[in-house]
Amino acid sequence: MARLGVVIVGVGGAVASTVVAGVELMKRNIVPRRGMITESSPGMPPGPLANQLDVAPLDELVFGGWDINPQSLYAGALQHNVLPTHQVALAREALEQIVPWPGIFKNEYSTNLRGDHVVKSANFRDQIKCVISDIEAFKAKHRLDRVVMVNLASTESWIAETGVHKNLATFEAGLDANDPAISPSARYFYAANRAHAAYVNFSPGPTSPALTEHAEQTGNPFAGSDGKTGQTLVKTVLGAMFRVRQLKILGWYSINFLGNNDGLCLDAPGSNKTKVLSKSTALDAVVGYPVENHQVHIHYYKPRGDAKEAWDNIDVEGFAGIPMQMKVNFLCQDSVLAAPLVVDLVRLLDVCSRAGGRGNQRQFSLFFKSPYAAPGETPVHDLFDQEKLLLDWAAKVRSR
Amino acid sequence: MARLGVVIVGVGGAVASTVVAGVELMKRNIVPRRGMITESSPGMPPGPLANQLDVAPLDELVFGGWDINPQSLYAGALQHNVLPTHQVALAREALEQIVPWPGIFKNEYSTNLRGDHVVKSANFRDQIKCVISDIEAFKAKHRLDRVVMVNLASTESWIAETGVHKNLATFEAGLDANDPAISPSARYFYAANRAHAAYVNFSPGPTSPALTEHAEQTGNPFAGSDGKTGQTLVKTVLGAMFRVRQLKILGWYSINFLGNNDGLCLDAPGSNKTKVLSKSTALDAVVGYPVENHQVHIHYYKPRGDAKEAWDNIDVEGFAGIPMQMKVNFLCQDSVLAAPLVVDLVRLLDVCSRAGGRGNQRQFSLFFKSPYAAPGETPVHDLFDQEKLLLDWAAKVRSR
Amino acid sequence: MARLGVVIVGVGGAVASTVVAGVELMKRNIVPRRGMITESSPGMPPGPLANQLDVAPLDELVFGGWDINPQSLYAGALQHNVLPTHQVALAREALEQIVPWPGIFKNEYSTNLRGDHVVKSANFRDQIKCVISDIEAFKAKHRLDRVVMVNLASTESWIAETGVHKNLATFEAGLDANDPAISPSARYFYAANRAHAAYVNFSPGPTSPALTEHAEQTGNPFAGSDGKTGQTLVKTVLGAMFRVRQLKILGWYSINFLGNNDGLCLDAPGSNKTKVLSKSTALDAVVGYPVENHQVHIHYYKPRGDAKEAWDNIDVEGFAGIPMQMKVNFLCQDSVLAAPLVVDLVRLLDVCSRAGGRGNQRQFSLFFKSPYAAPGETPVHDLFDQEKLLLDWAAKVRSR
Amino acid sequence: MARLGVVIVGVGGAVASTVVAGVELMKRNIVPRRGMITESSPGMPPGPLANQLDVAPLDELVFGGWDINPQSLYAGALQHNVLPTHQVALAREALEQIVPWPGIFKNEYSTNLRGDHVVKSANFRDQIKCVISDIEAFKAKHRLDRVVMVNLASTESWIAETGVHKNLATFEAGLDANDPAISPSARYFYAANRAHAAYVNFSPGPTSPALTEHAEQTGNPFAGSDGKTGQTLVKTVLGAMFRVRQLKILGWYSINFLGNNDGLCLDAPGSNKTKVLSKSTALDAVVGYPVENHQVHIHYYKPRGDAKEAWDNIDVEGFAGIPMQMKVNFLCQDSVLAAPLVVDLVRLLDVCSRAGGRGNQRQFSLFFKSPYAAPGETPVHDLFDQEKLLLDWAAKVRSR
Repeated sequence: MARLGVVIVGVGGAVASTVVAGVELMKRNIVPRRGMITESSPGMPPGPLANQLDVAPLDELVFGGWDINPQSLYAGALQHNVLPTHQVALAREALEQIVPWPGIFKNEYSTNLRGDHVVKSANFRDQIKCVISDIEAFKAKHRLDRVVMVNLASTESWIAETGVHKNLATFEAGLDANDPAISPSARYFYAANRAHAAYVNFSPGPTSPALTEHAEQTGNPFAGSDGKTGQTLVKTVLGAMFRVRQLKILGWYSINFLGNNDGLCLDAPGSNKTKVLSKSTALDAVVGYPVENHQVHIHYYKPRGDAKEAWDNIDVEGFAGIPMQMKVNFLCQDSVLAAPLVVDLVRLLDVCSRAGGRGNQRQFSLFFKSPYAAPGETPVHDLFDQEKLLLDWAAKVRSR
Repeated sequence: MARLGVVIVGVGGAVASTVVAGVELMKRNIVPRRGMITESSPGMPPGPLANQLDVAPLDELVFGGWDINPQSLYAGALQHNVLPTHQVALAREALEQIVPWPGIFKNEYSTNLRGDHVVKSANFRDQIKCVISDIEAFKAKHRLDRVVMVNLASTESWIAETGVHKNLATFEAGLDANDPAISPSARYFYAANRAHAAYVNFSPGPTSPALTEHAEQTGNPFAGSDGKTGQTLVKTVLGAMFRVRQLKILGWYSINFLGNNDGLCLDAPGSNKTKVLSKSTALDAVVGYPVENHQVHIHYYKPRGDAKEAWDNIDVEGFAGIPMQMKVNFLCQDSVLAAPLVVDLVRLLDVCSRAGGRGNQRQFSLFFKSPYAAPGETPVHDLFDQEKLLLDWAAKVRSR
Repeated sequence: MARLGVVIVGVGGAVASTVVAGVELMKRNIVPRRGMITESSPGMPPGPLANQLDVAPLDELVFGGWDINPQSLYAGALQHNVLPTHQVALAREALEQIVPWPGIFKNEYSTNLRGDHVVKSANFRDQIKCVISDIEAFKAKHRLDRVVMVNLASTESWIAETGVHKNLATFEAGLDANDPAISPSARYFYAANRAHAAYVNFSPGPTSPALTEHAEQTGNPFAGSDGKTGQTLVKTVLGAMFRVRQLKILGWYSINFLGNNDGLCLDAPGSNKTKVLSKSTALDAVVGYPVENHQVHIHYYKPRGDAKEAWDNIDVEGFAGIPMQMKVNFLCQDSVLAAPLVVDLVRLLDVCSRAGGRGNQRQFSLFFKSPYAAPGETPVHDLFDQEKLLLDWAAKVRSR
Repeated sequence: MARLGVVIVGVGGAVASTVVAGVELMKRNIVPRRGMITESSPGMPPGPLANQLDVAPLDELVFGGWDINPQSLYAGALQHNVLPTHQVALAREALEQIVPWPGIFKNEYSTNLRGDHVVKSANFRDQIKCVISDIEAFKAKHRLDRVVMVNLASTESWIAETGVHKNLATFEAGLDANDPAISPSARYFYAANRAHAAYVNFSPGPTSPALTEHAEQTGNPFAGSDGKTGQTLVKTVLGAMFRVRQLKILGWYSINFLGNNDGLCLDAPGSNKTKVLSKSTALDAVVGYPVENHQVHIHYYKPRGDAKEAWDNIDVEGFAGIPMQMKVNFLCQDSVLAAPLVVDLVRLLDVCSRAGGRGNQRQFSLFFKSPYAAPGETPVHDLFDQEKLLLDWAAKVRSR
């Protein structure tokens, strides 16, 4: 199989550098191939899609991407400090060769971040051209015929949907007018469609009728949004347990604190709102009723670094109205939870693209906090229902 | 529908008194009908089997049973202190009328317990006759045509399986010889079969080829064993989550401390062994590989009373071999978690019995830590697979 | 000894109703006399000041006070649900006789609260007259010669200190002008001085040069502020431990959630600010350096009721720079922690008053999160240093 | 000041290798000088004894010692994995030069450990001669005039005190007879006295009248026992808090799990008993009454490695008998907590020795779980009382 290009928006961030450095170390058999359902892992049964689909081998993945910080992936992996320094050093040469292309950036969307390695033009059409030509050059240099784009940029501020996203025509007009309601990530998505790069939105952000129309028209598949990693993963699973046992949830108090850029970004009220909306919908959907007294707080706390601590307190009411409590403390690493999902998504979107998929691919809901759904469709949030959805799709693809 | 008798082994214990007092309060609309999948519950969708099967209404349940402690259910409910005193007082008259019949007891099986409200004869055949005649008298008194027996006695000491349990013939010979390898609970089960009372083993204890044969022969259904309430419930659910995300479990350290008789009983090494065996099998089955460094410790700790505290520490390995930790602290009430499962089981075994079920009924695995399986059959431990098994059975029953 | 009057600002609140109902039950020997250093407690050594000072016996305490909610203390104790209903019922008659007098209230200071049982006049001098005449009537009715006033009202919004608090003269002028910078609690304090009622500020709030001058001039002792109950109590103790072991605190992340009026009140940004300021000073003082990354978050969470949950995560750096973490989860009851301190303070201020104390009494720092200190004085925050300060004072009083 | 020799029993263990490697890195300014009260630490006030006493500078400490495992301290530090590999590498040369001398070992005292780098003779007098000559050679080689011995060996099994420890005469006779009641650590202590090496018993183990007499006779100071590091440190501090607030402790449930040799050793029932006895005495002493329902469990759990996790659940009763709970989860590193205490003790025993101290030095109680006390003396367990004891002694030494 020919090599597969992976172009990442925010390639210098913690998640992306963990993906790239981790894969490079896996290629060299320095670290175990853990956490991916499209891979086999030592000491446990292989992932359910490891040997079932014609996925690109890790050795055939080639990485590139954009960032507002110009440092190489080697410097980035050391800075984010997710993988041990002495391991990262073993893939130094490969990582130093990956240097981000200048990114599209708009401060209004990420009020706590700063960066100057940016596309110079403020004209949206020019920016999009720039992104497409980055992809073309990348394909030429590495002789790639397929590319998947993954958005791993920090959460953008929440903005009310405006008319510009209503359909492709309004959106195109908005691009011509440099309408500020078209966020940087929307411009990347548009460029992906144009470049025939299957698109994964791993960051939070609403679905867009305009871009869905565009993807369908260009014959490009996409999936999103917002990787289901730490607290929401646990929430949808424990929520399902309380549902099965008919224990009424009286309240759910969740806090997160983390010390990486994502935390810094989410400490800004606008971005936090996007994220919190994404989290609460999932729980209500899983249990089948609106959970009262559901709170989610996110704070930037420097000592934690990239490690994230999620703490949940759940009050439930049992038999005869008697209250009980559960507390969960998850000492996790955001990037460690996210990275394998990114690898899985890249491989599966590529399979999907080759199988002729176009537009929104809801069978990948398993990976997302806020799975995109068509108007009228109900998103699936239960982890085990999501798993079934994916496996059923895989069986269908395989049987062709 | 005619009234349904429920006879409980260990009717004076914390779980049983919660079941009986709770149902009496629900009949009077004093407390909400929470936690049962065969019932509707305020503020949330009805249980999935609430309106689907012809289950006995709560108002038609009549309770009786055996205990080595002679106090009435009113005194018991106050002593166990699960439901608030002022609520229990509102069902005083009904509860005072339920006085345990003398129980079969063998100190070797419950080394930390004492009791003298016991069947006088040491002859097994006499003891069994006694149990059957208690049931007959109960049916006559309350004009019942159906009875379900539930074993809620404290965990019995673990004993190696001996030849006596091999088949019905050896078992019958063992009864004649008062073979000590036939535990009190085995004698109750035998009596249930003889009295055509569907049997639920909610306490831990291995399946027995002899009694399975007996149940099939007498045309009696049964289900077991060991109610899946607190920590194992959580374990099979989080285990499924780690399986879906391909996170390798490096170790799982579990402790429980509780201050009721069950805790006192489990502090005896023999009983603890029965329980711990039951817990570890479930996790391995859910994740698909033997979990190393899996420890389960149970301690008697008086200040907790009937409330139980379960603590879990889980070490997992994620992407590129990076370790993460999760801690869960469940401040639960053993009896509150168990009681609704008992009500569900009583109703469903009754439906099953009326539908002609006989022998082991594995569709009720959802309720058990150690679901009974026929030789060669693999028990189902995943909570969501268990739920599917039950709902499929219900659909079949309904469609007849 | 003659009886001692206790008049409470916010007498209908959770803390006050716990104080009053608890003392009434203790007088009747229904509940143990727990938590007070001026009392003996079953099963443990007597409080260090139990038999050392001539404190008023519990039987001689008479309670009254103001509240913006007119319900009796019996209704209040049931509503706040701190003491079990069936116990409160045993002191019903006594509690029903305590009905709050109308309170001074200003919505700007407590934005999340509402109440209409208020002193009608908006004129400050009239309000103060009203308070004083309430006290006089109370003394006459119960034939009391001594009264202590305790401020247990909800936290007032933080306001920048203005000139009006600079000295007594500016303050008196401010009263004449109904200056809004003079909060309701400042007016109560002024009234206490005028009525010769020793004053305890158990709520947060800065010291005031004007009122200190007033207390000294009128010969009245006072103490404050902000009862050191849950999280800050733990913080000053663990902080002292880290200091002794020279472990550097890298960050301290604290959250509180509670469901009573105090929580509702603190969810308003202004009041929260007063409280958080109070908490952070204490830790820095105990460890001897400004703790970076110290966060305190307080949220209103209804399912908790009066029970409060405090959660702390502490990151420390040990030998050779190696990081470690500690997590503390305190499932406490705000009112249960506060009530015994109130009783101790009432008794000790009375002793102090009789011994001729006037002005700020810093020997009572043991009870406070933000002990009042004179200009130039350093407040003592270490719990064990505070204890020594108090015991030294008691020894001095005793030796006279 | 001339250089100070430090000879360690169990020099290859986790604590010792952390001490030695940590000090070597501090000498090179690679890691901060954290956790010692005899040292200054960046970003916080200096330790209270940092500039007060004439303690040996870190640069003047020279390390040696015995172990039943022959690997160098470099190999040991890497194996125990407390300090990061890339830091340890920076002191490789110095650490490789420290190779343990063969140790005295008796399997009956450490049933879960194995080792064959042992003193060949089973004759106690020969073993002691061997230890003394190791010390003499060490002093000669490094031109040292002072040596302190620290016992950091794994916890020995608990044995009932026999007559042999009654006084020096019986002990000497026991040595002649190779009496098995004289444990390896007792032989080391005897050798230390003979070699005029001040002795620190940092491991658990009872005081011995015989060896106290010996130390006094030989003019040698000693201190012990059992370093107060993780859970007991927290216990004596929180216990003091509950004492100050007169909250009655109803129960204290403690567990520890760790994955190093110390954990393996403590999993053996005999050693566990020694340790648990040591822990419970401290709490009772601090609160002033015997705490009921106090449990301490220690388990070996491999995934944790040298890191230790301590969990505490505390039930307390407050005002009017209302119960509350506190939970503490300490994610600590045994060796990181112990190492700085060892450095402090070495320096302070050296000061003490130079100041003419002989026999038991109870002013060092601050460092110990089970401070040695003379018959009739009450050991001081409260951390803050212990601190005062030490500072008072230091002031006296300084003022001479």
